[in-house]
Amino acid sequence: MKVGLDVGGTKTDAVAVDDSGTIVGRVRLATGWGADAVTATVLAAVRALGTDAGVDVSAIRSVGVGIPGQIDPGTGRVSHAVNLGVEELDIVAATAPHLGVTVGVENDVKAAALGAYALHGGSGSMGYLNVGTGIAAGIVTDGRLWRGARGTAGEVGHISVDPNGPLCRCGQFGCIEAFAGGGSIAERWGKAGALPVRDVFDAADAGDPLARELRGGLARGVAAAIRVLVLTADVDVVVLGGGVTALGDRLMSDVTAELAASAEASAFMRSLRLEDRVELLPAGSPAAALGAALVGASRDTEGALAHG
Amino acid sequence: MKVGLDVGGTKTDAVAVDDSGTIVGRVRLATGWGADAVTATVLAAVRALGTDAGVDVSAIRSVGVGIPGQIDPGTGRVSHAVNLGVEELDIVAATAPHLGVTVGVENDVKAAALGAYALHGGSGSMGYLNVGTGIAAGIVTDGRLWRGARGTAGEVGHISVDPNGPLCRCGQFGCIEAFAGGGSIAERWGKAGALPVRDVFDAADAGDPLARELRGGLARGVAAAIRVLVLTADVDVVVLGGGVTALGDRLMSDVTAELAASAEASAFMRSLRLEDRVELLPAGSPAAALGAALVGASRDTEGALAHG
Repeated sequence: MKVGLDVGGTKTDAVAVDDSGTIVGRVRLATGWGADAVTATVLAAVRALGTDAGVDVSAIRSVGVGIPGQIDPGTGRVSHAVNLGVEELDIVAATAPHLGVTVGVENDVKAAALGAYALHGGSGSMGYLNVGTGIAAGIVTDGRLWRGARGTAGEVGHISVDPNGPLCRCGQFGCIEAFAGGGSIAERWGKAGALPVRDVFDAADAGDPLARELRGGLARGVAAAIRVLVLTADVDVVVLGGGVTALGDRLMSDVTAELAASAEASAFMRSLRLEDRVELLPAGSPAAALGAALVGASRDTEGALAHG
Repeated sequence: MKVGLDVGGTKTDAVAVDDSGTIVGRVRLATGWGADAVTATVLAAVRALGTDAGVDVSAIRSVGVGIPGQIDPGTGRVSHAVNLGVEELDIVAATAPHLGVTVGVENDVKAAALGAYALHGGSGSMGYLNVGTGIAAGIVTDGRLWRGARGTAGEVGHISVDPNGPLCRCGQFGCIEAFAGGGSIAERWGKAGALPVRDVFDAADAGDPLARELRGGLARGVAAAIRVLVLTADVDVVVLGGGVTALGDRLMSDVTAELAASAEASAFMRSLRLEDRVELLPAGSPAAALGAALVGASRDTEGALAHG
């Protein structure tokens, strides 16, 4: 039995996975704020799998944690997990002694990529594009996460696709993330709301010019990221996940229209059949927690899932 | 002994490589036009290694051919090699019976990527960016060519980086190739010359406004391709090769300045240290022919150099 946790900014999703890869238990709980509270959340989530989901916790052999921050490769150190109020935390050192099993940690987008890949059948290659506050991708091929030389593989959000585009928080203009990141859209929209991007879509439907511009930019940015992933890494399929994808078909139809427009203009782009290669991760998918479980288990098996 | 040929639009570069990987003979000859003449060029180049470079042709075990066209994976079929006047040619079927050894064929940019990687020390990961008539890259990691799912990995030339940029021959606007491909620059410059891009640089130095714009676009396009390769695949190093790189330091200083400008604007880009990760393939490098030799030899050894 392996356990995986997706520690998000508001909620933590926990799954227990048996040796056949089947999810046999799942719980969600609120994520605490700050290093100590995040550590406590991890421990509480594992306990809750036993108490609330009937999982035999004595059978757990590994715990994997997906977390929205930078991970120091080969260690348990997390840094800059700003959405969790964590500047520095060795999550492995903080939790493994209490859990008594192997603990592994991975960036949440990379963990979700591994999970989405497993849910997709576990063969070929996939780019998992996370459209959340920011934009980043995880590339998985032959079951392995593509990390790259220095851990920045998949950072497609900071590729500029328009020198006259909006200023990105990274300092460049026209980054994919400046167009399509939920944080950038919310900031430019400037009105509070639970899911500002949904408000933007609604206002665009009602004809608001700024909302239409922002909505168009979202589709442009996501389509650009899909093209980058296919033209550079030539992944079989691009799976879209992350908070903004809660918009579902409303987002997908915009993105598909954008891809269709470039296919219309270009025989080369048409030959790539991008529209057929994009999928949406279903709402409520356990991909991120499942991927974290795979990461945790791989710590026991020579890191088979993650290579340089 | 293995032989590699880089069949270019005007010249064919041939090398013989001994079992230690050392180039023991090299000849260049003019490339014929059309399928039959290209076939004859391949045969003549192998003969010339014996007659002109003193290579013991009886010791040759394999011949690899790098060619500027689409290669049907796992076969010897080349298509759309427009610079050679070849629409369709099974170069393996046409030459192997005459040569009496294993023959392999690879796209010239991918072959050059393998060769550049070997010359660079043969470890880590590399993006080889070919800046020629068009723009394309080959990605090599752990000694293997990254092909992707459908053979389009590295086609970074057709990523648009400016919706208001020049029309690309592919039909999109603002593709990296539309900015930085030698063919696009020559077309927009509109004046004949042996190396139009050199004329553009000279005219830009003399203050010509169009030339300055084209020269600036070249640096922007190459810098964008470097960022795409590092942000998506996170290769250790990007090596620039291809006809346009004959401009040497004049090109490199422009590209470096462009990379420095984004590093100035963005702490994130600065952290990538892109300027330290870009290199120029030396003029006259045998990389492409050497890479072709590796491809030819790999046909005998389970395709160890090339995976899906």
